[in-house]
Amino acid sequence: MTPNTYREIQLANRPEGTPTDNDFNFVEKEIPAIGAEELLLKTLYLSVDPYMRGRMKDQKSYVAPFELNKAISGGIVAEVIESKSEHFTQGDIVTGSMDWAEYNAVEAKSVQKVDPSIAPISTRLGVLGLTGLTAYFGLLDIGKPQEGETVVVSGAAGAVGSIVGQIAKLKGAHVVGIAGSQEKIDYLINDLGFDEAVNYKDDNFKEAFKKTIPNGIDVYFDNVGGEVSDAVIVEINRNARVVLCGAISAYNNPEADIGPRIQWKFITTSSMMKGFTLGDYAHDFKTGAQELGKWLQEGKLKYEETITEGFDNTPKAFLGLFDGSNLGKQLVKVADPDFAQL
Amino acid sequence: MTPNTYREIQLANRPEGTPTDNDFNFVEKEIPAIGAEELLLKTLYLSVDPYMRGRMKDQKSYVAPFELNKAISGGIVAEVIESKSEHFTQGDIVTGSMDWAEYNAVEAKSVQKVDPSIAPISTRLGVLGLTGLTAYFGLLDIGKPQEGETVVVSGAAGAVGSIVGQIAKLKGAHVVGIAGSQEKIDYLINDLGFDEAVNYKDDNFKEAFKKTIPNGIDVYFDNVGGEVSDAVIVEINRNARVVLCGAISAYNNPEADIGPRIQWKFITTSSMMKGFTLGDYAHDFKTGAQELGKWLQEGKLKYEETITEGFDNTPKAFLGLFDGSNLGKQLVKVADPDFAQL
Repeated sequence: MTPNTYREIQLANRPEGTPTDNDFNFVEKEIPAIGAEELLLKTLYLSVDPYMRGRMKDQKSYVAPFELNKAISGGIVAEVIESKSEHFTQGDIVTGSMDWAEYNAVEAKSVQKVDPSIAPISTRLGVLGLTGLTAYFGLLDIGKPQEGETVVVSGAAGAVGSIVGQIAKLKGAHVVGIAGSQEKIDYLINDLGFDEAVNYKDDNFKEAFKKTIPNGIDVYFDNVGGEVSDAVIVEINRNARVVLCGAISAYNNPEADIGPRIQWKFITTSSMMKGFTLGDYAHDFKTGAQELGKWLQEGKLKYEETITEGFDNTPKAFLGLFDGSNLGKQLVKVADPDFAQL
Repeated sequence: MTPNTYREIQLANRPEGTPTDNDFNFVEKEIPAIGAEELLLKTLYLSVDPYMRGRMKDQKSYVAPFELNKAISGGIVAEVIESKSEHFTQGDIVTGSMDWAEYNAVEAKSVQKVDPSIAPISTRLGVLGLTGLTAYFGLLDIGKPQEGETVVVSGAAGAVGSIVGQIAKLKGAHVVGIAGSQEKIDYLINDLGFDEAVNYKDDNFKEAFKKTIPNGIDVYFDNVGGEVSDAVIVEINRNARVVLCGAISAYNNPEADIGPRIQWKFITTSSMMKGFTLGDYAHDFKTGAQELGKWLQEGKLKYEETITEGFDNTPKAFLGLFDGSNLGKQLVKVADPDFAQL
């Protein structure tokens, strides 16, 4: 059933601007034999995330750069094909950070078991995984929205933003989403219960946006940076909190990212801005995952997945993150399980 | 002894760029009679501060704009000439926010008595007043320097910066000052005990600055904004704190203040930036003033004053703030007391 070879996706070049198909190499390898306390895993779902663009640059960041001509890695949900660990058996579903490959041989202790009865296993790469936890900790620990305050979220229809807005609603805030298409605007309002949503691509974006924030802005959860953030930051209230999660507008920009300096606005409003990455909250993952799981099971949290079929289409799914084509979490479905009944 | 008339300085225009003498009008007025619970005060020292430039603009800020053809106001140390309050007698020294005028008639409850035995009375406009407290709360509450960390201060030879650096030294930090002349650099190193000081006007400023921060930057106390801050922020460490106190480089700039966007740096270092104004700490002034007074009396805190003589020279003293001609706190000595023995 298991083939003798598998393919992995390597970083072929360090892209200068927007990455292209040519920056990825599919390389065939032999399925390795596994040793004691190791697992052979078959990739079922693979996560593509905007932060990976940063790892393609050869520069110091919060995670090490990907190496040239080595496999790219990221969040994966996989099935245990062969186990030499007493903690796992064939057909178990696991998740962890692994190579973009059809199969991975890993140390058993490097992955976590997934309980398929709680929610679809793909959610461990989204609402119950990296992106959900990112929304949860960034919003609640840095943004600290209070009842009746106004929370603005950019990249609102994305994997992180869509969860941020819903948690802010659970906390009693007036929630405004910023996204880039009418389909996304409708989704935010009609499906997720955002109070307002504005399309930043509209000519009258600034005026339309201002109408949605009659009481100004207390919390800004920023996934995009750039001109959208310039327009938001000038509207912040006294003692506002700006949560810096991402700056997708700049990821593919080889030039310096230039805009109005924002310091004076922060001085005159006694406001605060803080960046973070999920690793800052590693000690609290369990708490966050439990509360997110509870909300999900109670129907208080909705999520959307954009699933691209086939390992071959992984680069395409990744590149789509930067033209805004995904709604919610962008995943690649690599294969069905051999043994598990889901 | 008291004349029948006095002069006050009014705002004649809202300056577009750098203010000039023409933006100020000297207007003669009659000394008023005072009522119950009021004081007639003779101005001894008057404080000119960079934040006043913001009040000359007709825009929302943390304090209301100055009104056209009305007196400018600010921190003053004055002598009680006549008192209709049981709490004050002739010859008492008081401080408060009053009009830029040779005499002021004020409510007794709007001023505080100054004890001339603690320190020279002018210090109530500097190290024991607004600028000292600004340094104290901004550095300790937002910057939170820890022993062995690196603290960088811009505008380091100014009234706030010079105190920030000394408090940071008291807390055991490696302290680097940025200032604009060799005289100031020498003052920071030789008189105030900064570990390093760099002249931002030097051609090789960036390289020289980098050499002073072998362990990066943990706290940046920013008084100037602009290109100096651009150069500092790219060097911040993980979990850095940027204290936004002022942006003097932008105060006279009628154009939008444009520069590299800084959000990405804050994301990748999980760093924080916060603006503040002294009013945020009004409930703690007493604590701050006591600790500053204690350090001053113990000789742990030094201060410098640049004193311009004569009420006529008030505009000149104010304008000098923006070409960097002052060392430490810029004051105007308006008159000697009539009754007090200092």
